[in-house]
Amino acid sequence: MRKLSHGEILDQRLTPEDAVKSNRHPISLMLENVRSLYNVGSIFRTADSALAAELILCGFTPHPPRKEIEKTALGAVDSVPWRYEENIEDAIRAEQAKGIKVLAVELTDEHRAYDSISFEEYPICLVVGNELTGLDDKTIALCDDAVEIPMYGVKHSLNVSIATGIALFEAVRLWKGFEK
Amino acid sequence: MRKLSHGEILDQRLTPEDAVKSNRHPISLMLENVRSLYNVGSIFRTADSALAAELILCGFTPHPPRKEIEKTALGAVDSVPWRYEENIEDAIRAEQAKGIKVLAVELTDEHRAYDSISFEEYPICLVVGNELTGLDDKTIALCDDAVEIPMYGVKHSLNVSIATGIALFEAVRLWKGFEK
Repeated sequence: MRKLSHGEILDQRLTPEDAVKSNRHPISLMLENVRSLYNVGSIFRTADSALAAELILCGFTPHPPRKEIEKTALGAVDSVPWRYEENIEDAIRAEQAKGIKVLAVELTDEHRAYDSISFEEYPICLVVGNELTGLDDKTIALCDDAVEIPMYGVKHSLNVSIATGIALFEAVRLWKGFEK
Repeated sequence: MRKLSHGEILDQRLTPEDAVKSNRHPISLMLENVRSLYNVGSIFRTADSALAAELILCGFTPHPPRKEIEKTALGAVDSVPWRYEENIEDAIRAEQAKGIKVLAVELTDEHRAYDSISFEEYPICLVVGNELTGLDDKTIALCDDAVEIPMYGVKHSLNVSIATGIALFEAVRLWKGFEK
């Protein structure tokens, strides 16, 4: 067993032009009032790796062009379809009007697990919230459902970019299973 | 559906004393030459949330006490069992001598998926590498096997703290499935 060389990895990957046009996974991400430029940049990079359909930045979430985002995103700002929507309520209703199921990623009293998404629910949009306060209650109420990453430790919270990565890659993993 | 209140979340979580003593998941993490204090702090926080068995910091990976680590870890430095081992070769051999299966998290020519870990393989130790160079070839050769997170996009890489979160939570998810 040996690590792949840089050249072998380059051979496998998409060009930015292919990535924007390619058959992306039916999973988009929506961010509500994420404050940190570095978290936004990191989420761009994760969305690229997962071939997420789209990244929708809402409220006071910073958006490109910002050099701190681009530095952390390592080029993913050009390969991930994204847009800025000031009003998250409008953004959620627009996704729903397109037939996309909108799922809050949040700890709620329903405790539905993040690995319980069924084939029929796709396409989906995962909504994640602010670093300190999570999603607004009003936003959760607009979503079609909520899923949570189980928390086993002392702090009961993850960095928002980590939580997004875990939820997004699980949604992709489930989707790839349905494709088989 | 409503978001859990801060009080309800507090009621569910462990105290730091309980967390260190509690029946932790049979999954430890080993970091090789991770450079960023913020990545190390973030990985502490993720390891707490996943109730990982232990965090083993190797090579030039920074370790507590460092105020940048503690700030990002949000208290997890006190709840996650951790130790520093300068020599990763010794650290890997010590895990193996305890009957722990050591799995590199890296893109290799074997392409074994990160969600293919079987019940018989636990307890496991997931090994992740440097932000730019990944794991050393010598380190991969010492590991019992390697697993990879599939990369679908342009960049073919994730931030190390995101990759660690995805691989760790998948290992926990699989383990919880076997417990049922």
